[in-house]
Amino acid sequence: MEGLKKFPPRPTGAGEMFQLFRDGEPRTRAALVATTGQSRSTVAARIDALCAVGLLAPSGEATSTGGRPPSTFAFVPDARIVLGVDLGATHARLAVTDLAGAVLAELEAPLAIADGPDAVLGWTAEAGEKLVVGAGRSLEDLAGVGIGLPGPVDHATGHPVNPPLMPGWDAVDVPAALSRRFRTPTALVDNDVNIMALGEHRTALPDERDLLFVKVATGIGAGLVMDGRLRRGAQGAAGDLGHVAVPGARDVPCRCGNVGCLEAIAGGQAIATALRAGGADVTTASDVVALVRGGDVAASQAVRQAGRDIGAVLAACVSLLNPSRIVIGGVLAEAGEHLVAGIREIVYQRSLPLATQHLRITASLTGAHAGVLGAGAMVTEQFLASASVDELVAQSSEQR
Amino acid sequence: MEGLKKFPPRPTGAGEMFQLFRDGEPRTRAALVATTGQSRSTVAARIDALCAVGLLAPSGEATSTGGRPPSTFAFVPDARIVLGVDLGATHARLAVTDLAGAVLAELEAPLAIADGPDAVLGWTAEAGEKLVVGAGRSLEDLAGVGIGLPGPVDHATGHPVNPPLMPGWDAVDVPAALSRRFRTPTALVDNDVNIMALGEHRTALPDERDLLFVKVATGIGAGLVMDGRLRRGAQGAAGDLGHVAVPGARDVPCRCGNVGCLEAIAGGQAIATALRAGGADVTTASDVVALVRGGDVAASQAVRQAGRDIGAVLAACVSLLNPSRIVIGGVLAEAGEHLVAGIREIVYQRSLPLATQHLRITASLTGAHAGVLGAGAMVTEQFLASASVDELVAQSSEQR
Repeated sequence: MEGLKKFPPRPTGAGEMFQLFRDGEPRTRAALVATTGQSRSTVAARIDALCAVGLLAPSGEATSTGGRPPSTFAFVPDARIVLGVDLGATHARLAVTDLAGAVLAELEAPLAIADGPDAVLGWTAEAGEKLVVGAGRSLEDLAGVGIGLPGPVDHATGHPVNPPLMPGWDAVDVPAALSRRFRTPTALVDNDVNIMALGEHRTALPDERDLLFVKVATGIGAGLVMDGRLRRGAQGAAGDLGHVAVPGARDVPCRCGNVGCLEAIAGGQAIATALRAGGADVTTASDVVALVRGGDVAASQAVRQAGRDIGAVLAACVSLLNPSRIVIGGVLAEAGEHLVAGIREIVYQRSLPLATQHLRITASLTGAHAGVLGAGAMVTEQFLASASVDELVAQSSEQR
Repeated sequence: MEGLKKFPPRPTGAGEMFQLFRDGEPRTRAALVATTGQSRSTVAARIDALCAVGLLAPSGEATSTGGRPPSTFAFVPDARIVLGVDLGATHARLAVTDLAGAVLAELEAPLAIADGPDAVLGWTAEAGEKLVVGAGRSLEDLAGVGIGLPGPVDHATGHPVNPPLMPGWDAVDVPAALSRRFRTPTALVDNDVNIMALGEHRTALPDERDLLFVKVATGIGAGLVMDGRLRRGAQGAAGDLGHVAVPGARDVPCRCGNVGCLEAIAGGQAIATALRAGGADVTTASDVVALVRGGDVAASQAVRQAGRDIGAVLAACVSLLNPSRIVIGGVLAEAGEHLVAGIREIVYQRSLPLATQHLRITASLTGAHAGVLGAGAMVTEQFLASASVDELVAQSSEQR
């Protein structure tokens, strides 16, 4: 006779039942009994528990088949709010959304990430609380806060890892600092490109299963969606395209010590430096965009050539990932069609027909909002996951 | 009042319960009631249904806490068998495994894929049935057949798409042909590199969440595992590295019409051609391996340089995917350490520290068996999935 392993403690199961409601459709207890195969008393207890924490509420009555019509229950998206924060090298953007991703309030402000974590997170906490209050809610309603940082982040811990643009931030426990300041247990941190990819995917292109989001600004990076979910790789460093060697490019030295890196050839800084050498008065990627929009021919040509160099690297990405959509975001994507046209030219020339026949390459639809939307979505996903809802229910029943 | 959407028909739920048993541990009915929250009668009915189709069987008695000891039930891996087939340009390998992946019988034979689908699939059906019978089983026991082909395959349909090495195979309905010949409804087709990646991952490295399997033979291709699952991309073409431009390489013309493609520079054919120009008597990738093993210095140097060129492309893959493991397989991986050493040299030089600090680059552990093991695993995964088991149970209860 084989021994029997001790079975795990019985989960409440309310979280799993709640997943059915995330489509927004109202349901009766009887329908849930039929769908799940669980007993009527189990279903009733789980519905009661979800109503007690506010995630479900009675939403009306279903059509009766005789007798008293049965009550229906539905998801309550504004049961909680989330705060999404997108920090760049020199700017910050914050948004308050409900659990369905609807934006309740948003703000943008200049902010130097190089001021260090204390100053930046202090400002973020103050601005975030004001935004929440301005939206007619309080920090008690907060399901959590999500933040994107302009550098590599170890996704498991949420700690920045040697971020080149962020002096003073290396290995800082950003989730703990945010949790403390916002008085919420849920604080999630990721790099800015991953949250932009998530924001674009969830908000604008939820039906694309395989999407590559490329941010082109001072730096160049990508976020990968495969089979419908963001893929971060083993250390959360997936999509780090800035130092990939550009096939066929000149041996331009890069600050990383190698030569021919994508960022050193086609990044916003590299384009600005090249244009300055030609006599133009430009310093940043935004200056380059302004020049292009003003009709400067040399700037337009430089941006198109940057597109071609980025395209040479993205052609390899297309062969490796076979995405159905490449989205180009970041400030240089605002320079009209030049960047995307240059990218398209080389990707279609260098990739195999099977990989490109259904591929679309387009500018970001969520634009500057991609990051805050993604940071919010990252938190919402975790908050509404089966296990988190179970925990919420358990805490609530202890308190009663 | 909102209307109530019609709820979907009630699933049997047996398939979902069966998933708990896939770890091989025996369980009692009472443990399942506790784990799932389902009623005692529901659990009993589902156990009975799974025993009726043979996937579960009584496995003994658990320790009693007083009274009659409760029965335990466990997964029966040899309830069915699967056939895995790996077809190359000039060889075939077949293996019969049980549902836990244990190999019951295996064979290898020369076979020219260029003979076309009728001849090749006819031979495969004959050899496959012989192998099944030789293992003491019959085709009635077959859960399904999985096959890997040396060319691009649209994973959704299982049809080859313009496969360059496979004249006569374009758009052929391979799954239908296999189903008919093997009298099984489940016939799955994928490209050879994907099934090799799956075989290596499931059999040798199940704990690696992010793995890149690179096949280096006449052609060069990769299979991607991210977050623990094979990722095929939008058209199933992910990992098609053969025509990626090698950064810094010579402008060698490729049969695809572009120049500087990885396959034209570092594929087995390219190495053989270069060595032949130097006077060596080599034609195929296997000839190159034989030369290296025989101690030929020029051949060893050529293979190491091919490793460096492959490394230049894999460095970009590392930046994009951040894998924890790269596995080098295919016939050229059998040429000792030269290939892997060349790859390591460039990958560690060209990638960022965050992406390489925990990265291991190793030769395949499953070697020539990777493909058949993966083809079998692909079928087993589908056969044991929740919905398939539900269908099996439904068919069985109709017949009774």
